[in-house]
Amino acid sequence: MWYQKIITLPEFSRGYHLITDHIRKHLPPLPQTGIVNIFIQHTSAALAINENADPSVRRDFRQFIDHLIPDGDALFSHTLEGDDDMPAHIKSSLFGQSLVIPIVQGRLGLGTWQGIYLCEFRHYGGQRHLVITVWGE
Amino acid sequence: MWYQKIITLPEFSRGYHLITDHIRKHLPPLPQTGIVNIFIQHTSAALAINENADPSVRRDFRQFIDHLIPDGDALFSHTLEGDDDMPAHIKSSLFGQSLVIPIVQGRLGLGTWQGIYLCEFRHYGGQRHLVITVWGE
Amino acid sequence: MWYQKIITLPEFSRGYHLITDHIRKHLPPLPQTGIVNIFIQHTSAALAINENADPSVRRDFRQFIDHLIPDGDALFSHTLEGDDDMPAHIKSSLFGQSLVIPIVQGRLGLGTWQGIYLCEFRHYGGQRHLVITVWGE
Repeated sequence: MWYQKIITLPEFSRGYHLITDHIRKHLPPLPQTGIVNIFIQHTSAALAINENADPSVRRDFRQFIDHLIPDGDALFSHTLEGDDDMPAHIKSSLFGQSLVIPIVQGRLGLGTWQGIYLCEFRHYGGQRHLVITVWGE
Repeated sequence: MWYQKIITLPEFSRGYHLITDHIRKHLPPLPQTGIVNIFIQHTSAALAINENADPSVRRDFRQFIDHLIPDGDALFSHTLEGDDDMPAHIKSSLFGQSLVIPIVQGRLGLGTWQGIYLCEFRHYGGQRHLVITVWGE
Repeated sequence: MWYQKIITLPEFSRGYHLITDHIRKHLPPLPQTGIVNIFIQHTSAALAINENADPSVRRDFRQFIDHLIPDGDALFSHTLEGDDDMPAHIKSSLFGQSLVIPIVQGRLGLGTWQGIYLCEFRHYGGQRHLVITVWGE
């Protein structure tokens, strides 16, 4: 069984956003055993899995990572598209653009505390496109 | 061919631990060509692939990453569960929770020096659950 | 449908290199829907997806990441193989060794600006081996 759908997320502000429900509503009836792959077609945003309950986790992600990889760092030469562009590229590759989540007994095999994050690294990133692919049996 | 098993690792101390043998003993007879996915159902630990020989590599991982993303950093507001909690969330998403390893001619296609690491970021992380999924032909 | 091939890249210098065309020429006719997995069998290099146009992005990656995880950092004890060895291990696990890219309507589902990077973290990393696996229908 294969299923694939390209979805467009609503525009999100810079930061880390829980999108598990956005994803779920585009999933087909899942096979008993299989995989869900979610792929973001952009180089200045990322997907991640992390804590799904306390919003302070998502705020701390932004605080800390923006401090670690700061806008306008003097080392950057690729600055034409703004101070937030090159840091966004670096964050995108460190977090990654492709999630591989097992399907366990017909359900997304996330742990109790795991949710799916859209990591939006640009101030005005616009709408982001995701490819959702499901396979299994 | 599909195979799936949820396993529970013994409790590991904070640090980076080689678990290739733990994984191998839960694998079925492998297909000729395929994929093994290993997924950790937690948000304060991670899976990684790295050097499988010298234990000093794993110690240096801990030294360096704990310095880069320090316990109790003043930027963190999510501190109720301890000074090691928020850094563990961040490390978890930077290292990642899902490994995708090819099966080559009926064997795990790891390079000579590659082993599978459990990255335990909490002082007392407890037992960690992994979903192992295998598919191929 | 399954396809697998192990390829050897030409030797690249330390830095970030666009290898999308190297990969494409080893792909079979792609299925309508499926996945391409590219796995690097090394612990001191990585694969990533990022901006495919302006070379300054790749230069800034090197500048910034080499500053964040510096050669010869005093925290490293695993130094026998050179000052660039332990940083290479750390970078390898932060960027990751395995790409999972959807196949959409018979083509690699990369976004307009996405290309595939070889991240070579050693001064003399030698030739790197990649396992390319394709499955779908």
